[in-house]
Amino acid sequence: MEVRRFFSESPVIQQTITITGEEHHHIRKVNRLGPGDPIEIIDGRGRLYTGRIGVTDRHQVKVDVRDTETEERPPLRTIMAPSLLKTKAMNLLVEKLTELGVDQIRPVLYTRTDVDHGIAALKRWQRIAAQSLKVNKRLWLTDIHAPVTLQELLSGSAGPEIKSRILLDLEGKRRFELDSEGPVLCLVGPPGDFTGEERELIARYDFIPSRISDYTLKTETAAIAAAALLEALLPTFSC
Amino acid sequence: MEVRRFFSESPVIQQTITITGEEHHHIRKVNRLGPGDPIEIIDGRGRLYTGRIGVTDRHQVKVDVRDTETEERPPLRTIMAPSLLKTKAMNLLVEKLTELGVDQIRPVLYTRTDVDHGIAALKRWQRIAAQSLKVNKRLWLTDIHAPVTLQELLSGSAGPEIKSRILLDLEGKRRFELDSEGPVLCLVGPPGDFTGEERELIARYDFIPSRISDYTLKTETAAIAAAALLEALLPTFSC
Repeated sequence: MEVRRFFSESPVIQQTITITGEEHHHIRKVNRLGPGDPIEIIDGRGRLYTGRIGVTDRHQVKVDVRDTETEERPPLRTIMAPSLLKTKAMNLLVEKLTELGVDQIRPVLYTRTDVDHGIAALKRWQRIAAQSLKVNKRLWLTDIHAPVTLQELLSGSAGPEIKSRILLDLEGKRRFELDSEGPVLCLVGPPGDFTGEERELIARYDFIPSRISDYTLKTETAAIAAAALLEALLPTFSC
Repeated sequence: MEVRRFFSESPVIQQTITITGEEHHHIRKVNRLGPGDPIEIIDGRGRLYTGRIGVTDRHQVKVDVRDTETEERPPLRTIMAPSLLKTKAMNLLVEKLTELGVDQIRPVLYTRTDVDHGIAALKRWQRIAAQSLKVNKRLWLTDIHAPVTLQELLSGSAGPEIKSRILLDLEGKRRFELDSEGPVLCLVGPPGDFTGEERELIARYDFIPSRISDYTLKTETAAIAAAALLEALLPTFSC
């Protein structure tokens, strides 16, 4: 039986991690684990704790930590910058991009983006990202940023470190042209597409218009397909 | 304003298509179209009708057909054979695979597949496939088959016409090896993976174990990522 892995940002105090809230529920109710059962805890920042469940009650699970592994943060490879989307589509996009191992998600408020979300949405996406680590077995969380405008994205910190810039575009080239070292920044437009003004702005930053399909895709599907393609094409730095 | 496209398998009788049911609702209530509005109708078998809405009432919309385009069925390129999944995951898989333009979906009852669905599910997947044509602008429906066992899939009609066979496998090669002509058959195992017996059976049919990610993916995510990759790598035959 595979040892179950759970997510917790709680500190280790005297060899013990105390887990409450949603993950407490996952451990006790969903997976029906109890005292003595082996368990793994990840913190999304490179640490993997292995141990056994100690004292539990209705509100918390204490984990006796026996061993700690740490992994350095892998080099930045992929930054996806999709339009902010409605709740259901955005949740799906975040779930699949984090599962596929995208390093950063930077939602963009393009001119034709027709939604906005409060800070609660960002917290929800970060929780989704944490759940993805339990699926894909990575040790580092995808960074999910608060939404910014295109201008802010391009002029801000996403700029200088980027080696390849891709603009998803149905009129673009059929293949991705990638600097093999990464990192890659990939823009995915809103339903209704980029405006002419946005295209002019983007053109000033040396993005290569590229298409991943000959068919029109929903924004979330295009972002997921592009992430899958980048994951398959870029070299890996896994330990 | 882009002319809206709807799906109907109703025959053309005296230059008129009569639309009822779900698409009637989409035309009248969701898109608020009425008499005189331009409209496009696709039948999923290569026909695109353009015309205008004629008489409507609470149960039907009559479309006056002005023009008909036909497209021959494109050559078979991609056959995805994922494990049958629970309702929500299966609906997502069907939605995204059809949107990406997969030609055939053949759900498989692998040994560790732990669900089954009645015939109503097949009808629902076919409705999802029809909706995808309205997104991606294809004229031919993805064929969605009733679930079969692995033995039936391999020994049956999916066999002789296939040029490339891919087995999605985390231990497989990092790239897809494709016969550039297609068609490609791609197996995606159930949650819990293939059994040893299944692997032996599959090995007799010259499948190339290939991986699309270094991370563990959910079955539906793996199938979507593989479809995206095949779509990007295979040559297109679009008109």
